[in-house]
Amino acid sequence: MFFERIYERGLAQASFLVGCQATGEAIVIDPKRDIDDYLTLARREGLRIRKVTETHIHADFLSGSRELAAATGAELLLSDEGGREWQYEFPHTSLRHGDHFMVGNLKFEVLHTPGHTPEHVCFLLTDTPAGSDPVMIFTGDFVFVGDVGRPDLLEKAAGIAGTMEDGAQLLWRSLALFRDLPDHLQVWPGHGAGSACGKALGAVPGSTVGYEKLVNWAFQAKDEASFVATILDGQPEPPTYFATMKRLNKVERPLFEKKTLAILEPEELEAFMRKGAVLADLRSKQAFLGGHIPGALFLPWSNAFTTWAGWVIPYDRPIILSCDARLADDAVIALSRIGLDQVAALAPDVDTWEQSGRRLALVDSVDASDLARHAEHTGAMILDVRGTAEFAEARIAGSKRVHFGNLRKHMDELPKDRPLAVHCKAGNRSLLACSILQSEGYDEVINVSGGIDAWVKHGGAVEPGGDEPARDRVSR
Amino acid sequence: MFFERIYERGLAQASFLVGCQATGEAIVIDPKRDIDDYLTLARREGLRIRKVTETHIHADFLSGSRELAAATGAELLLSDEGGREWQYEFPHTSLRHGDHFMVGNLKFEVLHTPGHTPEHVCFLLTDTPAGSDPVMIFTGDFVFVGDVGRPDLLEKAAGIAGTMEDGAQLLWRSLALFRDLPDHLQVWPGHGAGSACGKALGAVPGSTVGYEKLVNWAFQAKDEASFVATILDGQPEPPTYFATMKRLNKVERPLFEKKTLAILEPEELEAFMRKGAVLADLRSKQAFLGGHIPGALFLPWSNAFTTWAGWVIPYDRPIILSCDARLADDAVIALSRIGLDQVAALAPDVDTWEQSGRRLALVDSVDASDLARHAEHTGAMILDVRGTAEFAEARIAGSKRVHFGNLRKHMDELPKDRPLAVHCKAGNRSLLACSILQSEGYDEVINVSGGIDAWVKHGGAVEPGGDEPARDRVSR
Amino acid sequence: MFFERIYERGLAQASFLVGCQATGEAIVIDPKRDIDDYLTLARREGLRIRKVTETHIHADFLSGSRELAAATGAELLLSDEGGREWQYEFPHTSLRHGDHFMVGNLKFEVLHTPGHTPEHVCFLLTDTPAGSDPVMIFTGDFVFVGDVGRPDLLEKAAGIAGTMEDGAQLLWRSLALFRDLPDHLQVWPGHGAGSACGKALGAVPGSTVGYEKLVNWAFQAKDEASFVATILDGQPEPPTYFATMKRLNKVERPLFEKKTLAILEPEELEAFMRKGAVLADLRSKQAFLGGHIPGALFLPWSNAFTTWAGWVIPYDRPIILSCDARLADDAVIALSRIGLDQVAALAPDVDTWEQSGRRLALVDSVDASDLARHAEHTGAMILDVRGTAEFAEARIAGSKRVHFGNLRKHMDELPKDRPLAVHCKAGNRSLLACSILQSEGYDEVINVSGGIDAWVKHGGAVEPGGDEPARDRVSR
Amino acid sequence: MFFERIYERGLAQASFLVGCQATGEAIVIDPKRDIDDYLTLARREGLRIRKVTETHIHADFLSGSRELAAATGAELLLSDEGGREWQYEFPHTSLRHGDHFMVGNLKFEVLHTPGHTPEHVCFLLTDTPAGSDPVMIFTGDFVFVGDVGRPDLLEKAAGIAGTMEDGAQLLWRSLALFRDLPDHLQVWPGHGAGSACGKALGAVPGSTVGYEKLVNWAFQAKDEASFVATILDGQPEPPTYFATMKRLNKVERPLFEKKTLAILEPEELEAFMRKGAVLADLRSKQAFLGGHIPGALFLPWSNAFTTWAGWVIPYDRPIILSCDARLADDAVIALSRIGLDQVAALAPDVDTWEQSGRRLALVDSVDASDLARHAEHTGAMILDVRGTAEFAEARIAGSKRVHFGNLRKHMDELPKDRPLAVHCKAGNRSLLACSILQSEGYDEVINVSGGIDAWVKHGGAVEPGGDEPARDRVSR
Repeated sequence: MFFERIYERGLAQASFLVGCQATGEAIVIDPKRDIDDYLTLARREGLRIRKVTETHIHADFLSGSRELAAATGAELLLSDEGGREWQYEFPHTSLRHGDHFMVGNLKFEVLHTPGHTPEHVCFLLTDTPAGSDPVMIFTGDFVFVGDVGRPDLLEKAAGIAGTMEDGAQLLWRSLALFRDLPDHLQVWPGHGAGSACGKALGAVPGSTVGYEKLVNWAFQAKDEASFVATILDGQPEPPTYFATMKRLNKVERPLFEKKTLAILEPEELEAFMRKGAVLADLRSKQAFLGGHIPGALFLPWSNAFTTWAGWVIPYDRPIILSCDARLADDAVIALSRIGLDQVAALAPDVDTWEQSGRRLALVDSVDASDLARHAEHTGAMILDVRGTAEFAEARIAGSKRVHFGNLRKHMDELPKDRPLAVHCKAGNRSLLACSILQSEGYDEVINVSGGIDAWVKHGGAVEPGGDEPARDRVSR
Repeated sequence: MFFERIYERGLAQASFLVGCQATGEAIVIDPKRDIDDYLTLARREGLRIRKVTETHIHADFLSGSRELAAATGAELLLSDEGGREWQYEFPHTSLRHGDHFMVGNLKFEVLHTPGHTPEHVCFLLTDTPAGSDPVMIFTGDFVFVGDVGRPDLLEKAAGIAGTMEDGAQLLWRSLALFRDLPDHLQVWPGHGAGSACGKALGAVPGSTVGYEKLVNWAFQAKDEASFVATILDGQPEPPTYFATMKRLNKVERPLFEKKTLAILEPEELEAFMRKGAVLADLRSKQAFLGGHIPGALFLPWSNAFTTWAGWVIPYDRPIILSCDARLADDAVIALSRIGLDQVAALAPDVDTWEQSGRRLALVDSVDASDLARHAEHTGAMILDVRGTAEFAEARIAGSKRVHFGNLRKHMDELPKDRPLAVHCKAGNRSLLACSILQSEGYDEVINVSGGIDAWVKHGGAVEPGGDEPARDRVSR
Repeated sequence: MFFERIYERGLAQASFLVGCQATGEAIVIDPKRDIDDYLTLARREGLRIRKVTETHIHADFLSGSRELAAATGAELLLSDEGGREWQYEFPHTSLRHGDHFMVGNLKFEVLHTPGHTPEHVCFLLTDTPAGSDPVMIFTGDFVFVGDVGRPDLLEKAAGIAGTMEDGAQLLWRSLALFRDLPDHLQVWPGHGAGSACGKALGAVPGSTVGYEKLVNWAFQAKDEASFVATILDGQPEPPTYFATMKRLNKVERPLFEKKTLAILEPEELEAFMRKGAVLADLRSKQAFLGGHIPGALFLPWSNAFTTWAGWVIPYDRPIILSCDARLADDAVIALSRIGLDQVAALAPDVDTWEQSGRRLALVDSVDASDLARHAEHTGAMILDVRGTAEFAEARIAGSKRVHFGNLRKHMDELPKDRPLAVHCKAGNRSLLACSILQSEGYDEVINVSGGIDAWVKHGGAVEPGGDEPARDRVSR
Repeated sequence: MFFERIYERGLAQASFLVGCQATGEAIVIDPKRDIDDYLTLARREGLRIRKVTETHIHADFLSGSRELAAATGAELLLSDEGGREWQYEFPHTSLRHGDHFMVGNLKFEVLHTPGHTPEHVCFLLTDTPAGSDPVMIFTGDFVFVGDVGRPDLLEKAAGIAGTMEDGAQLLWRSLALFRDLPDHLQVWPGHGAGSACGKALGAVPGSTVGYEKLVNWAFQAKDEASFVATILDGQPEPPTYFATMKRLNKVERPLFEKKTLAILEPEELEAFMRKGAVLADLRSKQAFLGGHIPGALFLPWSNAFTTWAGWVIPYDRPIILSCDARLADDAVIALSRIGLDQVAALAPDVDTWEQSGRRLALVDSVDASDLARHAEHTGAMILDVRGTAEFAEARIAGSKRVHFGNLRKHMDELPKDRPLAVHCKAGNRSLLACSILQSEGYDEVINVSGGIDAWVKHGGAVEPGGDEPARDRVSR
């Protein structure tokens, strides 16, 4: 039996290629959209990808199942559990609880484990030549290392009201099923640390049933009620693009195609931006602070790039990248992983922009230690762009909170006639927020260096943020 | 002024990116179909490709002009000389003799230089800030280093009867124009050594007008008649794909798209071959001799790969590649350069084929020193697959000649009831010929190791091959 | 906690980089000699390699611990267990059973687990922030997936007589220690399928204590005596280079340095070979059969390359590689992993060799179905070059067996005055054997295509091979 | 004949690999220190590098001749012209005016062309199979495209007093020799646009004798006196490292070795800097302005990187690089090209530095339009860090000039008790100057954005800079 985990760091997302060496057949579980990795790996191992499957309809990335099936002719096996709303709308082989299928001599049993989503399944794998005991389970977004998949995404991201308590209860019951599995079983979840599909995921790639029962908080809950309360508490806001992913992953949509990007001249970029293009600046924080093309959004190339882009780039506007040309291809792929396929061109580099006689934009900064004095002096509104949970824990008195990914929806609450002093935890998300506000015409925007961490370090007072209205939830 | 020559070794084909650094504008002359090289180079130099041009309608490769214009928005400037038959059938800016255009401060003058083809033009470049003297000329397939473009291609490859003498005379007159250019002018032709567009091209990338006048044979001819006689003498057969290139280069046709190939299993390959797929074996000569999948054509990866493929692969059949997977992408590009875009998959490797219980095919060899004895003993027909000129110079008595690229058209002349002992000059083209014959059902085929060179070395007698009927010329 | 397994496919060898993200410190366990992978990975993760350790003194590869410590300044922690003979002879921090050390917040406990070797230790890892339960164990060559480390290597490879029963008994007692570990513990061994350090290793990267107890044969043994008998039965011959590795891994020896290889001309290659150079031909089987430079050993580039090279290349002779130049750097690294650092140059390619007027050598083949007739007709000795266990199971009557890696030591038993028909299981090792014999002056050598597998398939009779004298064991 | 020009953009330096395809022999002229390019190219073309030569003892880069000879066993052919001071001090084959040598069928004639340096030679190449007319000349630093090699380097860079007029006169006489060459000859010089070995080099790779006679200024000079006056006028200051190059290129010195760099932690970097390490910040201008590690020199990765480094990094101090790890290997090679082999490590990235609680340094900027007001208000000294020629043409009244590469030698002329407003032409060299001054303890340093170009654009007055004392010339 061949086993390899393919980990996409930007989405903290794991997929798996598992093959039977005796027959040369292989399956891919939860493929990402850039499928070359699987094709290359299968070639190297002399395996043929004959089946492709998913644990559930993903919300955080665009599945590559259809790309991979198209490239290999593999059979698509997908869950038909979860009810009418949760059916894939393109041809596939149906999977239901209790089903099993073979990949060569490898037996995959299907376990329906709703909670994160209604149709969610796990795959229990038995290497039949080695024995009748299962060797591992692929848990998708059900059980992570140290955490479980959040049941509130549908309500918060996809706007399906009233589903998060139901989901939490379903999840509790699904956990009972997991609890009955043998301790020795390897556990391979669909996400690692940093994913928005949970709140406390570990960085170790895999675990075991026995270890999770010992240390995973979810198995320490004493009853359903306390479990439900705990899991619904303090979950981060889901990125706004999750709703789009949910929709696109159910339907037929265009397959990914590679292309080479041209570099625009300054006037061409201006024309694009007049027509609504989003200019994403992938350079470092220091470079953005040192000067950027006016209107650019601060989206530095990092593991968070894809997720941040999903928060702030609309799906219906062309995208221009401001970055080193060598990075462009990787960035295009990173965006394609969440279906942001509309990258149109590269921006001229900032030196070219400046040498053409155009000015670079700056973002003013204020030290956290000076924030109080500055706000008093200028009458600035203190804008906190962190997430709900962070805000609830501690906030600067008098600050207003809007998550950086929801700024455009709350423009009417943000005054243009007084300065905005924007902060987050450490100064990065607030810089993205500043760049969004500048691109929307706010002139007096200042970034609080070091964020609330620096504020506290310099003796600034904080108070509990309390509950907020659920206004950031999507209502469609 | 920025200047860079981009050389494609498989076609011995040169293209040029020339840019004005003062304005950032650039032009590409005679682009190949895989255009990433130009885009990357322009990015690196901070240049924008604003114009794309061609010296003539190419016969030996599929032009990338339309791909490049599509990717950059550049203007297409193309010759409207040569008469009704030689007009590009897609939108472009017209060029005529005496026209000039600017790329920034660079002045390009158009010289109509028919001969190789009726619409052929050259570009005389003056770097205006440096002075009013021209600095270089782009001669396409007009004047090469040490040779001139052959005027017989249209007749031989495209089947336009009676044009080769006309072309030779036109070429003679065009040479007069070249002769008037100043000695100091740099000469940048469209091909280097190995191209089928001439017969004696040098390997040095560029030359000068003065040097060519001194050493190029064409300038030593004493009058038109002797020039015409010389140039039409001993030209190699043009590859059969040239006719297709001529046609595709004039019209709108699909643009190139990258894709990733899957590896077939043995039974899948068999199904493909039953449906007429061509199996191209890109491995080395020794590997082919050591064992190949039955039906495979010997097309080793080398500088001759693209041209050989153009000779023997029909445009209407799917192509399967038998090669290391790491080579596949390069091979797909190499084939696309002549429009062979229909690569469908990779073959299983030969070990996999053999391990599946299938046999590998072999090609028997006979040493040249044994050929006479062998032929007498077995009654084998000696088949010479070299070109006209080689055959005319010296042949083995009693041998029959069919160019390796025309074998399929002359099957009726080749007996199946007696062995065929196939030779060329050194043993490579004959191995390709053997593989073609085997794929067409000839069972008794033997390769003459070392070819006629070895035959002569071991004391074998040769005689002049004499004239042959022009039967290999296309007649449509 | 960060965890990544680095797998070297040629040696089926696993190393591990484990880091504490809170403090940025990391450790590497059992590093291979080409250490760039660790440096690159640590850079990417923002980790500093502060400690380097080994589970034991390796026999199958040259450790990169000293290279890695030299490049990073990391502390070397090595076992001082096992007695006077098994002490590292260069500076290091001592590890003994019951010791523990920290890498940031990660606790590593040292377990002495002799058997495979006397000084062998395992590392039990607890992620202290997550809890007091250990999360995984690094078992080196103690417990593999589906197997345990063989205790007979010291006697067979390093020539330490009478140790293999002792080792097997020690291993049995060490297994009791493993049996007491909790079922949920992840198990990360030092080798995967294909390693010569065990006989039945699985291809899955890791396992769990509980699963191994269920399916690993070693835990099914009912008592020490039967365990000892089973484990010592049917172990493959260890490669001859293992003795050298054992020695080099204990002492200071030169660190690895990269260099670029030149290509020899034919006469230069001949000069090298006259001086005793080994010519390793890395091309495919078909290419070798189709023609190779006389004297070349058949060592095709594959996962077995390093091990085969270790079997047949002496450490005191320069090595010349016959392969594509693009493969040369990888091949040099692959050889360096077992300390074969004396690669001197690249051979000319076979076409160049042939064009220089020199002949290529061939290896004759006989179909397994023809072997009986052939042997009778020619009086050939049937030479079986497989391993002890394969031979014991079934052999062709009348055949003589010498392992392909020991041929040079048994030349006096192989006649030069009658043909040798060489077979193995499927025809690859026998081809290597043929190439060795040819290089030693045997003229009448023939390879049995398809090996004993094909012989059996075509109805050939086999008989049990029985016991053999232990003549291949090293005695120093 | 095979010909390829290898161009190193950072030094604007050209080397040439020329080979005879009939015999497989090749020569490299003026190799750079990273010789893999030549080895790879020769492999690809099936050529063996048998000879290595140089046009002269280079001042602007460390020659790779000895590295290349060591790797290939090639013969080193070097000029013995120029007198006792200009003799190579390691074994080589002597070349003198009028000598010739063969590379296969290629004839290289040696022409002694002193002026740039006393020992300078050119190579006149005749492709003997093509005819007896020479085809090209390799002119080194004698004749460039549009310029000639400067004769003042020895005096200015190497401190050999009183040689520059002599050199100019010698050059004038050498030009007469060039004038006699035929117009058609191709000219391949050793440098392209951007080299400090001349003042007006063109960007076109090659030229011809005839074209240069028409447009190169040096051939328009009417007599020796005016030529000497013109060529000595307005030559840029040579980089300070030129003196070191001259010395190292004559003697045996250590060959280049590759190594992998570790990343330092903040405290390790601080320890290095206390011991005198130079911290080179290779990030972009915007990133440097947005925040850099205190003490870092602004040395952005660009074509000017190597030269700037040569100006400001002493040869006796360890170098730490602050850049993306992916860039590190290229940067190490770029520095090695001028012998700065002492790169010790990579700095932590700026985010890591900041997160460790350390501050990033900034450089204040003043708009050129505000400079006058600012200087008056603060009493700042206006410091011009441009070159002699630029300063002579136009300067801001009252400004003091010190070339950015000579700042450390003139610290005593720069006050620490008043601000320094630093400008260059456009704002880049002045930023490097600011970073040097900051690293030397100047606290009040401000960069003039846009430099004197922006000053003039906003109406600022300039006056001629006049002559300066030759204080920046080296005196040893």
